[in-house]
Amino acid sequence: MRVLALPDGFDLTLGGRLILRHRAAAPCLFVGHGDARMDMVRGNFDIEDTLTARLPLPVATVAEDSIGWRITFAVAEGVAPLATLKIIGNQIVPTVADPSLNRFWLRILAEAGEHVWGGGEQMSYFDLKGRRFPLWTSEPGVGRDKSSEITFKADVMGKAGGDYWNTNYPQPTYLSSRKYALHFETTAYSAFDFRHPDYHELEAWAVPARIELFAADRFTGLVSQLSERFGRQPPLPEWVYSGAIIGLKDGDNSFARLEKIRAAGVPVSALWCEDWVGLRETSFGKRLFWDWRANEQHYPNLKAKIAVLKAEGIRFMGYVNPYLCNDGMLFEEAEAAGYFAKDAVGKTALVDFGEFDCGVIDFTNPAACAWFEEKVIGQNMLDFGLSGWMADFGEYLPIDVHLANGIDARLMHNAWPTLWAEVNARAVAKRGQTGEALFFMRAGFTGVQAHCPLLWAGDQSVDFSRHDGLVTVMSGALSSGLLGNAYHHSDIGGYTSLFGNVRTPELLMRWAEMAAFTPVMRTHEGNRPRDNLQLDENPQVLAHFARMVKLWVHLVPYLKSLVADAVATGLPVQRPLFLHFEEDAACYAVQDSYLYGPDLLVAPVWQAGTETRNLHLPQGAEWVHVWSGATFDGGADISIPAPLGEPAIFYRRDSSFAALFRGLTALV
Amino acid sequence: MRVLALPDGFDLTLGGRLILRHRAAAPCLFVGHGDARMDMVRGNFDIEDTLTARLPLPVATVAEDSIGWRITFAVAEGVAPLATLKIIGNQIVPTVADPSLNRFWLRILAEAGEHVWGGGEQMSYFDLKGRRFPLWTSEPGVGRDKSSEITFKADVMGKAGGDYWNTNYPQPTYLSSRKYALHFETTAYSAFDFRHPDYHELEAWAVPARIELFAADRFTGLVSQLSERFGRQPPLPEWVYSGAIIGLKDGDNSFARLEKIRAAGVPVSALWCEDWVGLRETSFGKRLFWDWRANEQHYPNLKAKIAVLKAEGIRFMGYVNPYLCNDGMLFEEAEAAGYFAKDAVGKTALVDFGEFDCGVIDFTNPAACAWFEEKVIGQNMLDFGLSGWMADFGEYLPIDVHLANGIDARLMHNAWPTLWAEVNARAVAKRGQTGEALFFMRAGFTGVQAHCPLLWAGDQSVDFSRHDGLVTVMSGALSSGLLGNAYHHSDIGGYTSLFGNVRTPELLMRWAEMAAFTPVMRTHEGNRPRDNLQLDENPQVLAHFARMVKLWVHLVPYLKSLVADAVATGLPVQRPLFLHFEEDAACYAVQDSYLYGPDLLVAPVWQAGTETRNLHLPQGAEWVHVWSGATFDGGADISIPAPLGEPAIFYRRDSSFAALFRGLTALV
Repeated sequence: MRVLALPDGFDLTLGGRLILRHRAAAPCLFVGHGDARMDMVRGNFDIEDTLTARLPLPVATVAEDSIGWRITFAVAEGVAPLATLKIIGNQIVPTVADPSLNRFWLRILAEAGEHVWGGGEQMSYFDLKGRRFPLWTSEPGVGRDKSSEITFKADVMGKAGGDYWNTNYPQPTYLSSRKYALHFETTAYSAFDFRHPDYHELEAWAVPARIELFAADRFTGLVSQLSERFGRQPPLPEWVYSGAIIGLKDGDNSFARLEKIRAAGVPVSALWCEDWVGLRETSFGKRLFWDWRANEQHYPNLKAKIAVLKAEGIRFMGYVNPYLCNDGMLFEEAEAAGYFAKDAVGKTALVDFGEFDCGVIDFTNPAACAWFEEKVIGQNMLDFGLSGWMADFGEYLPIDVHLANGIDARLMHNAWPTLWAEVNARAVAKRGQTGEALFFMRAGFTGVQAHCPLLWAGDQSVDFSRHDGLVTVMSGALSSGLLGNAYHHSDIGGYTSLFGNVRTPELLMRWAEMAAFTPVMRTHEGNRPRDNLQLDENPQVLAHFARMVKLWVHLVPYLKSLVADAVATGLPVQRPLFLHFEEDAACYAVQDSYLYGPDLLVAPVWQAGTETRNLHLPQGAEWVHVWSGATFDGGADISIPAPLGEPAIFYRRDSSFAALFRGLTALV
Repeated sequence: MRVLALPDGFDLTLGGRLILRHRAAAPCLFVGHGDARMDMVRGNFDIEDTLTARLPLPVATVAEDSIGWRITFAVAEGVAPLATLKIIGNQIVPTVADPSLNRFWLRILAEAGEHVWGGGEQMSYFDLKGRRFPLWTSEPGVGRDKSSEITFKADVMGKAGGDYWNTNYPQPTYLSSRKYALHFETTAYSAFDFRHPDYHELEAWAVPARIELFAADRFTGLVSQLSERFGRQPPLPEWVYSGAIIGLKDGDNSFARLEKIRAAGVPVSALWCEDWVGLRETSFGKRLFWDWRANEQHYPNLKAKIAVLKAEGIRFMGYVNPYLCNDGMLFEEAEAAGYFAKDAVGKTALVDFGEFDCGVIDFTNPAACAWFEEKVIGQNMLDFGLSGWMADFGEYLPIDVHLANGIDARLMHNAWPTLWAEVNARAVAKRGQTGEALFFMRAGFTGVQAHCPLLWAGDQSVDFSRHDGLVTVMSGALSSGLLGNAYHHSDIGGYTSLFGNVRTPELLMRWAEMAAFTPVMRTHEGNRPRDNLQLDENPQVLAHFARMVKLWVHLVPYLKSLVADAVATGLPVQRPLFLHFEEDAACYAVQDSYLYGPDLLVAPVWQAGTETRNLHLPQGAEWVHVWSGATFDGGADISIPAPLGEPAIFYRRDSSFAALFRGLTALV
């Protein structure tokens, strides 16, 4: 970066791009003070900031030295500076004179027609321009649409409705169509506001340690840089390529149901039973028993059964989260050792999860981490025979607990998902199973990329809704992918069924059609299995699913090339159209179709009752429709038949995998 | 007021009460700049402020001169002051150095246990402490409760759900239990925040012309002062004492229905037909035709019929609002004369009211006022024989119109209700009918007291709901009453029926029981007359209503004494318990019972399905339950039977009207 001092301010450029344009009448920096009220109801936050001061800093003084520039900012001439920005390489290091200043705003120059992406895993809007995005890890919300009845009811029930910006995985990092990226290095609450035509206003409730900038000539280069910065994932385990992961939570009966599914011709890589720990009856329904070890009553002879399955080429997966229920065995041990986060008087902080209370393992305490890694994940899970698990939660760190590292929980809240990922990754590494044991997370934050081998899209509603249905999975995959999360997948059929909203056969089938073009296919019974259609209850759905898994398996050679790409360059398996077609501006905001690697374009049907997809084919290639063989020039907006079983997929005519893609039509 | 300069700031006191406590570390004054987005949908506003600067002003310099004190404020030592407060008598006059500063915050010292009232006509919370109240005239909202299904639906339909603070009549004035009152003299958007334990933060989107303070030894003295400041109403017309005003909007058929109601023994003072101007068919239903003159088709021979009624001692009332539909005759005349507010290119600004468009009479143009007063109200209404009317609206001034006085419509929006009241009052005065013709308004703002002879509580839902039902009328009466609005009443039975919510017989009867203890009883058919129970449709309801009107008429001698009080002292007819019992702290927050004058305590049943009322009897008097004759010592919380027909009313045992009150039991 370079700074050009001017009589009335300065310009800061990054590889020729104007990033900061500071003038006395239009300052780029503001500092201030706020008192935020933050209420948490089971992972849903009600946050209200009372701003007591917001000080524009119009008076900037630029000094250059051997390592860069130092810009001091004051509220007026003749007054001591309140803030400093040091410019070193591609980093901006801010400091403030008064430690009580806890609000920081930076205005980045915006251009007409600019597009912006990132912000972590964003479920509603892939292109962030025109909206404001608070960045605070939380439950994503039910319905996520304040005009929907479901969201209204969920809000009234427990502030659980959410909004377009709520996400399990926020990250204060964005990419611009001006081919740069920007990252706030802070775990404080932040909010990126892309509504103003002239600037992006980036807000943080602490002074960021650094503001990092990245620039590249091509978008792929930018994504590779971010992937290097935030960390790269290991390749997928070899065993996962043999088929779908089947989610069942039916106790011992899960094994019999798996056999029925296999008998229907479904290639299976693993059986995933989140209820491997047993159940607890609550007035809300059956919940898992949060004491992380196999439950002999619910799953008799589980260890032996896992071995039998494994001999048949099928792995077994489980479930874990960072809490321990206070009526379980592990709780006692952890509490005796002081491994839990504390309350104001130094006792174990108990969190109510709905008729049962839990302690929160304090991941800022290295001894607590080591114990959880060895005892829980090492002995109880990996040594027991688990090949992977859902590493659930990470978003719920209460903001009033006291932690071993002494840092305010409001500053650790956003950091928690990454710490949780690290605990899982270290436990796996200690058993030498990196790239072999596969855990998946919905929560995330800066740096989760280095530790979590697979994201899952969280808890969609079991419907086709715009802000909480099937379509949101694509936005989640594309936004998180640009930040260096190469592998993404979702609960086939969705998860959340509330207020009488239940799965249709059509939904399950459309979801499977999308999932066939993601790196992992995995089913889920949902939150209310008995009320919702299951894979093995409907022969048409099951046969359709078998066919989709066969398609997925057929594409494994291509998928392996994408995994190799991800390892080498950090490019995600699922990619926005513009990543490879950056000259075609019509691709920039597309969020309901995507590239599965460089050569396959996928346009899932995400609305009910339609057998047609409208889509844009990127300019710069010729596209072959897989099922009809019809060839289209890129640059066109087309409408294509997409009946159940024939998802709208296109391959590049010049692809080296063209023969493989053509082979899809031969599958029954 | 007095100012005491201190090394580190200053104290400002009002009759010994500490009002401002300014310290460098805790300033009392902030100025700043904001850009507000304001969207209006039929009188409902969606307002979002983007605050670009909020500057605490810690450095205060106090200078005393012959007329008072002058305090200058700066952001830092050695920097030119940004703001000044001049203290003259009981007024604070603020000014700022930079005219672009459009946000102003003043912190008033708060004390533990303090209560605060006022804010205009507040429908949800009489005691304002603990909440923030934006003060911006608008539709009050439907349901006014974000957790209710009705509010949710109204919000989705047209941002019409509202919230606890939405009101037709806001006013930036409050009274404190510390026995002082404070008023912001500004018509800008403002917000009074009473949430903080240590201070009240008063915000305005312009620098107020003045901040006025009032102090008194007793609350009654404070109310009298405010009434003098904001203006006093004429006495009620003599004709109104003969009975209820019956609202019917059934064209010529209204006369026959009135006869049925009279035949049932209901004393009637007036027939009120808002449809006297005729109807318009829209897809929403029947709407009035907004061309303010009698409609011969809908009301044949109306002038003659009014004369016949008048001879029988019954007046006729109509309806008017400050708009003219562009397909009416008056529009043409007003447009030719340039009487309408203009759009950005100087044409008549048309406002969509739902399948018909209207011009907005520009009340900042004296010629437009004079024309409306003479032609519309004078000739078409008063000369035609109307004895009063609903002067509807006033809250809808669009914020993007251009006005004759050149002032930004965002600054005139709040002023509009008072201008509208003034036009009505002047028109009445020009015909010498002040105190004889009776109009009533729901909209209000500072100064409406001087012009509007009677408030009505706006459009409650036809239900018992906490934030939009029967109970809200009492809060509206008490809060507006403290600011000098002596006369308040409501639509008996409520108004708004949406989404299948309709009137029950119980609601109509309970409403009549409350209305019998207000200065005017008036019925309304509601927004959907055919879907909702009407007075004349149910013999039990009609008989009950007749009895309630007889009670009201019986109390006329007492009511006349209250009207005389109001004229002399400005005390409202309906009074909060604490106004006369200021030593009893349990009275301070009561909003569901009230004093009807000094001697009668009224505790209406405002919930469905109950025949009992719990209430507090103020300490300092003995209270006689009217129906049973039972006597209670004040200071007690009691539970009293209140079946339909026996509203919970108590009189002071030592009242000079005791015999009159006892006489209520003799009425059938």
